[in-house]
Amino acid sequence: MNRRMIGKLLGLLLMLECLFLFPPALISALDGEGRALSAIFTVMAISAGGGAILWLLCRNAEGSFYAREGFLITTLGWVVMSAVGALPFWLSGEIPRYVDALFEVISGFTTTGASILTNVEAMSRGLLFWRSFTHWLGGMGILVFLLAIVPMGKGGYSVHLLRAESPGPSVSKLVPRMRQTAGILYLIYIILTVLCVVFLLFGGMSLFDSLCTAFGTAGTGGFGVRNDSMASFSPYCQSVCTVFMTLFGVNFNIYFLLLLGKFSQALRSQELRVYLGIFFGAVAVITVDICHIFGGIRQALHHAVFTVASIMTTTGFATEDFDLWPQLSRTILVVLMIVGACAGSTGGGIKCARLLLLCKALGARIRQMLHPRSVNLVRVDGHTVEEETLQGVNTYMTAYCFIAIASVLLLSLDNLSLETNFTAVMACLNNIGPGLDLVGPTSNYSHFSDLSKLTLIFNMLLGRLEIFPMLVMLSPRTWKRAS
Amino acid sequence: MNRRMIGKLLGLLLMLECLFLFPPALISALDGEGRALSAIFTVMAISAGGGAILWLLCRNAEGSFYAREGFLITTLGWVVMSAVGALPFWLSGEIPRYVDALFEVISGFTTTGASILTNVEAMSRGLLFWRSFTHWLGGMGILVFLLAIVPMGKGGYSVHLLRAESPGPSVSKLVPRMRQTAGILYLIYIILTVLCVVFLLFGGMSLFDSLCTAFGTAGTGGFGVRNDSMASFSPYCQSVCTVFMTLFGVNFNIYFLLLLGKFSQALRSQELRVYLGIFFGAVAVITVDICHIFGGIRQALHHAVFTVASIMTTTGFATEDFDLWPQLSRTILVVLMIVGACAGSTGGGIKCARLLLLCKALGARIRQMLHPRSVNLVRVDGHTVEEETLQGVNTYMTAYCFIAIASVLLLSLDNLSLETNFTAVMACLNNIGPGLDLVGPTSNYSHFSDLSKLTLIFNMLLGRLEIFPMLVMLSPRTWKRAS
Repeated sequence: MNRRMIGKLLGLLLMLECLFLFPPALISALDGEGRALSAIFTVMAISAGGGAILWLLCRNAEGSFYAREGFLITTLGWVVMSAVGALPFWLSGEIPRYVDALFEVISGFTTTGASILTNVEAMSRGLLFWRSFTHWLGGMGILVFLLAIVPMGKGGYSVHLLRAESPGPSVSKLVPRMRQTAGILYLIYIILTVLCVVFLLFGGMSLFDSLCTAFGTAGTGGFGVRNDSMASFSPYCQSVCTVFMTLFGVNFNIYFLLLLGKFSQALRSQELRVYLGIFFGAVAVITVDICHIFGGIRQALHHAVFTVASIMTTTGFATEDFDLWPQLSRTILVVLMIVGACAGSTGGGIKCARLLLLCKALGARIRQMLHPRSVNLVRVDGHTVEEETLQGVNTYMTAYCFIAIASVLLLSLDNLSLETNFTAVMACLNNIGPGLDLVGPTSNYSHFSDLSKLTLIFNMLLGRLEIFPMLVMLSPRTWKRAS
Repeated sequence: MNRRMIGKLLGLLLMLECLFLFPPALISALDGEGRALSAIFTVMAISAGGGAILWLLCRNAEGSFYAREGFLITTLGWVVMSAVGALPFWLSGEIPRYVDALFEVISGFTTTGASILTNVEAMSRGLLFWRSFTHWLGGMGILVFLLAIVPMGKGGYSVHLLRAESPGPSVSKLVPRMRQTAGILYLIYIILTVLCVVFLLFGGMSLFDSLCTAFGTAGTGGFGVRNDSMASFSPYCQSVCTVFMTLFGVNFNIYFLLLLGKFSQALRSQELRVYLGIFFGAVAVITVDICHIFGGIRQALHHAVFTVASIMTTTGFATEDFDLWPQLSRTILVVLMIVGACAGSTGGGIKCARLLLLCKALGARIRQMLHPRSVNLVRVDGHTVEEETLQGVNTYMTAYCFIAIASVLLLSLDNLSLETNFTAVMACLNNIGPGLDLVGPTSNYSHFSDLSKLTLIFNMLLGRLEIFPMLVMLSPRTWKRAS
C-alpha cells in the first residue's frame, strides 16, 4: 500500500479544512462571538499545522496508486476531516459532548442533516454557518474539490479518487481529463448555488439565512437555521427550495449535456425519467392523501411537492410534520427515502440509476426464463450495461441490506420503537435527516445512546461513501504488510 | 404453450384433492357434523367431477414441456386447488365470506398459518382437520406428491415441476430419476411426521390434536387447534414441537445423506451450519434479553428456543406473546422471519442457502476490489457456484424487495400502523403467520380490508412458490399466441 501518498493527500485535505474554516471565523468575528471565534481559530491552527507537517513528511510520495488507495484515502479523508471539523462545536462548549459534535458534523459533511441539537437558534452564527457549510462541502465531495483545485501530477490516481467519492453505480468522465471533470462539476455546483441564494434573497430572506439554506439545499443536506426547519419561511422561499432541491437531485451529467447544447440527449436519459416519474407519481398520491388535512388541493400540493422533493433528494427540510400524515403518505415517504435521487447528484439513497438497473436485470431474467435460449442483455440509454456493473449493483444492495439490518439491531438495544429505529437507520444510511416517530421532522436524535449515535454516524459515512470504501478500509486484508 | 398438458395435470390435481378431502369427511361423519359433512361432500363431487372432465378432455396431451409450462402448471395448480379447497369453509357457513375462506386455505396450503378466524375452537372438527391438513400437503408440495405417486410417462417435464415447486436457489436431484427423488422426499416427510405424532401422543395429547399439531409442525405452517396457539399445551409437548419444527427446517437432502450413511458429508453442509449458527445465536441473545420477564433462565430459554424455532422455520406457533418482549428480541424475530429456514425444507423465508450465497458473493466482490486481477469464485460445500445461480439469487432478492414494498404500500391504505403493515407482509411473504403489533401472536388478520387480504393472499403464494412461477404467469409474454 502506498502510505506516503495517503499521508500527502491527508495533509493537503487538512490544510484545505483550515481554509474552509475561514468564512465561519469571519462571521463570528463580525458578530463578536468570542468563544466560537477562539474555538475556530484553535482548530484552524491545528488543521493547518497538522496538515503541513503531514504534507512535509510525505511530500516525496511516489509509486503505484490503485483502487484500494483511492478507497482508503477517501474514507480516511472523510473521517479525519470530520474528527477535526467537530472540534469547534466541542471546544466552544456549544455542543458539550464530543460524540454529539462528531454526530453533528458528520451529519453535515455526509449531507444527512440529522441533528442532536434541541435548540438550533441558540447556536452562535459562526458555528451555525460552519454547520451548514459542511453540507455544501460534502455535497459534491471534498476530494473532488481537491482534484479540481490542486494540480497533482501524473499517476492516474485521480480516477480512483473520483470513483471512490462519487455516488452511483458507475462514473462517467465528462471530459477525458479527470481534473477538468472535477472542475466542471464544481462550476455547475457553484452556479446553481448562487442562483439559489439570489432567489432566496429576492424572497426577503437575510443573506445569512439565504446562504445557510442554499448550502443545505445544494448539498441536499437539510440543516436549518430555525427550530422549525423551513416552516416559518414564506411559501415563496419554500417553493424556491422545492425547485432547487429537485434540481440538485438530478445527475450533474445532464447539466453538462445541457451546457453543451445536447438537449435531446439530456432529456432522453432513462434515469432522469425514472427520477421525475417517481417524483410526480409520489406528489400526486400524497396530495390526494393529505388533501383533507389542509382543506384544499392547493395547500396540500404545496406541502406534498416540498416534502417529496425534500425526502426523495434526501435533503430533509420540513414545512409540515409529515409524521402526522396518513399511513399511505408516511409509507410512500419511507420508500422515497430508500430510492433517493439520481446518481452523480448531491443526493443520497440507493439512487434511481441503481433502481433502473435492478428493474432491467429483473426483466431480463424473466425473459430468460420464458425463452431460455434467447440473449437478454441489459441496456440503458442505448448502451449495453456491463456484467461487472450489474454485479456491483447487486453486491451493493446486499451490503446495504446487511448494514441496515445490523444497524437496526444495534439501535434496538435502546428499546425505542421499531419504527423509530428503522426510520432512523434509513434516514442516516440514505443521508436524509428526519425519519418518523421519535426521529420525525419535529424531533431530533438526542434520545439515542452513544452506541446508537456511533452506529448512526457509521451509517451516514457508509451512505455517503456508498459502502465499499468503508468496507475496504475495515477489511483486514487491506492492512496486511505483504500486500 | 402446451395447454393440453397443463389441462391434464390440473385434472389430475383436482381428482387428487377429492382424495385429500376424504379424511376430513370421515372425521365430520364420526362427529356427526352435518353441515360440514355435506359441504365437504359437495366439494368432493365438484373436484372429482371437474377433474375427471378436464382429464378426459386433455388426456391425449403430447409435445414439448419446458420451464415455462412447469411454472404455469405449478401456479395454476396451487390457485385452483386453493379456490376449490376454500369451498368447504364457505359452503358450511363456518367462514361466511369467500375471500376469508380463500385467505384461510391459501394460508394453509402455503404453510403460512395466518388466520382471519377470531375463535378457532368454534370450528367443526372436520374442517379444523382440513385446515391443518392443507399445511401438510403444501409443506412438501402438491406437485411433488403427484410426481411421487402417478407414473407420468416420458417427456422430461418432472424436473421442471419439481424445480418450480421446490424452495431454494437450486434443486439437487437426490437420485437420477425425478420420480424416485419425489418419493424419497415424501418418505422422509411421512416418517418424521409420524414420529412427531407419536411423541405428542406420549405427552397425553389427543389423537386429533396430535395429528393437527403435527401437520402444522411438519409443514412449518402454524395453524393451531386452540385459540392460544400452543400456550395451553404442556411444556413437554411444546418442547416436542420445538425439536420437530427445527428438524423440518433442515434441508431434506441432509436426511437423505444420513439415510445413505454419509454422516460427515451431511454435517459439513455449510447451509446447515449457517442455519444452526443463526438459530443458537438468536436463542442465546433472546434468552438473556427476556430473562427478567420470566424471572429465571430456564423458563426464558424454554420460550426463547420455542419462539426462535417457530419463527425461523416460519411455522408461527406461539407459547408467549412475543409482541410484548423488549425491542431487541422483537427486532431479532423480524430478522429471523426474513432469513427463514434451509432450502429444500418445508420452511419459508429467503432461506439460509440464499443468505450464504449473498454473503459469499459480497466477500468475493470485496476481494476483487482489493486485488482487481485475482480470480474470485464463489464456492459452497467445495463446489464452485455457477454464475447463473448467483444471478438467480440476486434477481430473486430484487423481486422480493419490490414485492414487499408494493405490498406494504397497498396495505397502508387501511391506515393501520407501519409496524403492522410491514410485519404482516413479512409474515405472509415468508409464510410465517404471526407478525407484530395488530398481527401479533395473540391477534389475527381479520382487521384488514379485502384489498389487503387479497394482497396478503398474493404474498403467501409468491412466498411459497418463490416468486418466479407467479411472475411468469403474470407476464403478458407467457400468454402470447405465437410463442
